[in-house]
Amino acid sequence: MQKITYTLAQIAELTGATLEGNADCTIQGIASLEKAIPGQISFLVNSRYQLVASGRYEKFLPTTKASAVLLSPLHAEDCPVDKLIIDDPYQGYLKLAALFAIKASPKPGIHKTAIIGTDSKIAASVSIGANCVIGNHCEIGEGTVIGPNTIIGDYTTIGMNGDIEANVTLYDQVNIGDRCMIQSGAIIGSEGFGMIRDSEGWKKIPHLGGVLIGHNVEIGANTTIARGAIDDTVLEDGVKLDNLIQVAHGVVIGKNTVIAGCVGIAGSARIGRNCMIGGMTGISDNIVIGDNVIFTGMSQVTKSITKPGIYSSGTSILPQKAWHKNIARLHNLDDIARKLRKLEKETNE
Amino acid sequence: MQKITYTLAQIAELTGATLEGNADCTIQGIASLEKAIPGQISFLVNSRYQLVASGRYEKFLPTTKASAVLLSPLHAEDCPVDKLIIDDPYQGYLKLAALFAIKASPKPGIHKTAIIGTDSKIAASVSIGANCVIGNHCEIGEGTVIGPNTIIGDYTTIGMNGDIEANVTLYDQVNIGDRCMIQSGAIIGSEGFGMIRDSEGWKKIPHLGGVLIGHNVEIGANTTIARGAIDDTVLEDGVKLDNLIQVAHGVVIGKNTVIAGCVGIAGSARIGRNCMIGGMTGISDNIVIGDNVIFTGMSQVTKSITKPGIYSSGTSILPQKAWHKNIARLHNLDDIARKLRKLEKETNE
Amino acid sequence: MQKITYTLAQIAELTGATLEGNADCTIQGIASLEKAIPGQISFLVNSRYQLVASGRYEKFLPTTKASAVLLSPLHAEDCPVDKLIIDDPYQGYLKLAALFAIKASPKPGIHKTAIIGTDSKIAASVSIGANCVIGNHCEIGEGTVIGPNTIIGDYTTIGMNGDIEANVTLYDQVNIGDRCMIQSGAIIGSEGFGMIRDSEGWKKIPHLGGVLIGHNVEIGANTTIARGAIDDTVLEDGVKLDNLIQVAHGVVIGKNTVIAGCVGIAGSARIGRNCMIGGMTGISDNIVIGDNVIFTGMSQVTKSITKPGIYSSGTSILPQKAWHKNIARLHNLDDIARKLRKLEKETNE
Repeated sequence: MQKITYTLAQIAELTGATLEGNADCTIQGIASLEKAIPGQISFLVNSRYQLVASGRYEKFLPTTKASAVLLSPLHAEDCPVDKLIIDDPYQGYLKLAALFAIKASPKPGIHKTAIIGTDSKIAASVSIGANCVIGNHCEIGEGTVIGPNTIIGDYTTIGMNGDIEANVTLYDQVNIGDRCMIQSGAIIGSEGFGMIRDSEGWKKIPHLGGVLIGHNVEIGANTTIARGAIDDTVLEDGVKLDNLIQVAHGVVIGKNTVIAGCVGIAGSARIGRNCMIGGMTGISDNIVIGDNVIFTGMSQVTKSITKPGIYSSGTSILPQKAWHKNIARLHNLDDIARKLRKLEKETNE
Repeated sequence: MQKITYTLAQIAELTGATLEGNADCTIQGIASLEKAIPGQISFLVNSRYQLVASGRYEKFLPTTKASAVLLSPLHAEDCPVDKLIIDDPYQGYLKLAALFAIKASPKPGIHKTAIIGTDSKIAASVSIGANCVIGNHCEIGEGTVIGPNTIIGDYTTIGMNGDIEANVTLYDQVNIGDRCMIQSGAIIGSEGFGMIRDSEGWKKIPHLGGVLIGHNVEIGANTTIARGAIDDTVLEDGVKLDNLIQVAHGVVIGKNTVIAGCVGIAGSARIGRNCMIGGMTGISDNIVIGDNVIFTGMSQVTKSITKPGIYSSGTSILPQKAWHKNIARLHNLDDIARKLRKLEKETNE
Repeated sequence: MQKITYTLAQIAELTGATLEGNADCTIQGIASLEKAIPGQISFLVNSRYQLVASGRYEKFLPTTKASAVLLSPLHAEDCPVDKLIIDDPYQGYLKLAALFAIKASPKPGIHKTAIIGTDSKIAASVSIGANCVIGNHCEIGEGTVIGPNTIIGDYTTIGMNGDIEANVTLYDQVNIGDRCMIQSGAIIGSEGFGMIRDSEGWKKIPHLGGVLIGHNVEIGANTTIARGAIDDTVLEDGVKLDNLIQVAHGVVIGKNTVIAGCVGIAGSARIGRNCMIGGMTGISDNIVIGDNVIFTGMSQVTKSITKPGIYSSGTSILPQKAWHKNIARLHNLDDIARKLRKLEKETNE
């Protein structure tokens, strides 16, 4: 592995933190409080707005083996090693982590094995990887990187500074804004699951809508987004989708909504802005979810929700024997409730 | 985007509808009643047999901005704009949408970058895209299109007029009928999750079965179908699978059964004909589901079902606090039921 | 299809079984007791440790059309055809099935269309398929096979005798042990879903951890494994993952744990050794699951589990009407329980 080295003095300057410790101490990597070894720096960040778990374990602070820790003034006293103190440890952490990020940006240019269709406009600073196949009438904006083996259909556009990774498939008529990240295996714009039954079986309807994706959108690995039957499927600015999510035809997802892995959203559902949808949640077709709604993981959402708030479903686990007993009762719960009502009446009489 | 233009008179003739309105009115696209703008045509279709949501919103008819609407005689009176009246609006809609479908069919021929193994028979009218790698002893029937970067193993066959899209992976011994659509990212014929535990750990068993797929089958994006351990995994004619579905080794899915996104079907389960399986449903291994069974979304199917009908499971959502309270009670439901029984006895005595 | 033929005498010798029947009988294939036809051999294996269903149907033994059956002495009496008797039918079955496995091993060598980066060490016996793109500073051990169209990032290593199949994507800094199988469509090492919210929206944090995979690990088709934000995501030796599983950033999965299809594991969860996790189970972020824990399918795991045992959740299916009634009651279960308590008090007074 490539080594990146800073002194604590350099890190303090680059992150805007105040150093209490050895300015000349050399740091060669970043790790969690629990796993860090001497020569590494760690950090302590806590927040309900934080979707990353690593590092938020305050309990590991007293015993950390890190050479230094970046943290807020609140925790400075409990830190047994050199400290980098900063008022906003989230921002400090972002800057700190960026120092150790080594992801290489490929050079601009179209790989000689890539195949580009006719009438497509590729900006000069675009990088297109090996074995990419790009269709006709496409547009790709400045600074965008397309990973190897990625397929792009006709009439598809990608904005500036996009990160379209390896093995992505974009069908025809997919329009993507600026600064979007699309991870490997994502499939965008395949025909939706819209069919009509006649006497012979199910007949596919043509899917004439496209997919419209705003700016700053992220789409995780192996996530699928179907094109609309008639109207476009839409992801507004700032939407973030994790891995293995299914977004069906005609769905609309509002600005800055984040969706965790393995969620399924059925056809033409509309989801508001600033929502947070827990992993493996299922959302029924054609329902409407308002802004600022939170679903915890594995929620079964079968009706529209207009009121902001946190919603949950599922039974959570029990030891199997207890579960069997209770679920058998659940399957007779209506009967139980009726018997109770009857008993109440009898007792009151 | 490419523009396709028709007059209303042309559309009436091509769909078999009766025009009430301006025969010379020019139509440049199709959209839903809600989103259509002047110059576009819309439609109104309602049916419980319809798996597409767009356009079925009767409530948008009075205020539509479409220049014309295709609909049944029943709704003609409520239509504020030019009308195309047709007895069977489903069929009319299929014909109408087809008029505006622009998906280009690639020309027959094998792309110069595609690699074809030995002893494989590729019919003359087949189109094979860039960077495809096709194994030995394969057969591909007339009119079939294989998208770019698709991989096909040995002894695999595909019938006529198939649509195998980009970035698909077909392993060895996968047999696919005529007129099948397989969307990007689908993986068919990988070894199933069949193992035997010994003292050292889990040992993979060889998977000797293949995958047998009938005619008119559709397989969605990133759906996975494992090969059988011994017998084939089977999808009968007319089966339609949405995106991100897992079909395990040795599963059999009956004719014309449709399965929505994110469903998981465990090893050797057998599913009947004409079933409809809602999204995110889980089906246990080795169980048998009869014909004409419907599962609503997120059903937990742990036992065989022989009787046709609609089955459901799941708790659906509640505000989180109420959910916590009720689920805590559910975890003691057997106890609650016993107490009620005791109380009933005491009261009756 | 290629034909493989043995006499029963040969099979007896190669599997270590005792033949009771016609030594010269010719066998051309293997099939389940239910589906076998004359000329084929079948087998009977039963065990709770067996994750494969085919062939374990004792009820089909009396009517099987197989020419011979491999089975334990316990079942020999009930076998109506030639028998191959063996004390450990699991091991016998593994040997038997291996006789009929025809999967061809590709020859060593790097396909002329493959692209290999600088400073990567590819062992002499490695086979690299067409259109592979391999990054810089990689290492691939002896005997490993890389299927066509697979992408490998920088600083990624793969041990000996690995089976990395077609259309796989390995990002940078993924370290894989010996004898691992990675099926098509798997995506390993994409950035996790770690973000921090500020006034403008969600901001991605850099993901500096890698993915660390032990020996004898299997990863199914279209399964996704995110890299860690800080520490590595870890799969210990002998871990087996089925298809369409999501493993989030920083997750640790212990030795010999097996996970069935469509499971989702959220960020930084830690799962013990020798666990068995049923399909479509969801595991919350940051929780800890001990060794020897079994979750049945669709379990909703929202809290840590330290005690070994079998745990379950979910409601299982009911006819839709009954389900509606019972779930409506579940949504008032706390109220029902309170009323019961009140009634108990009144009755006791």
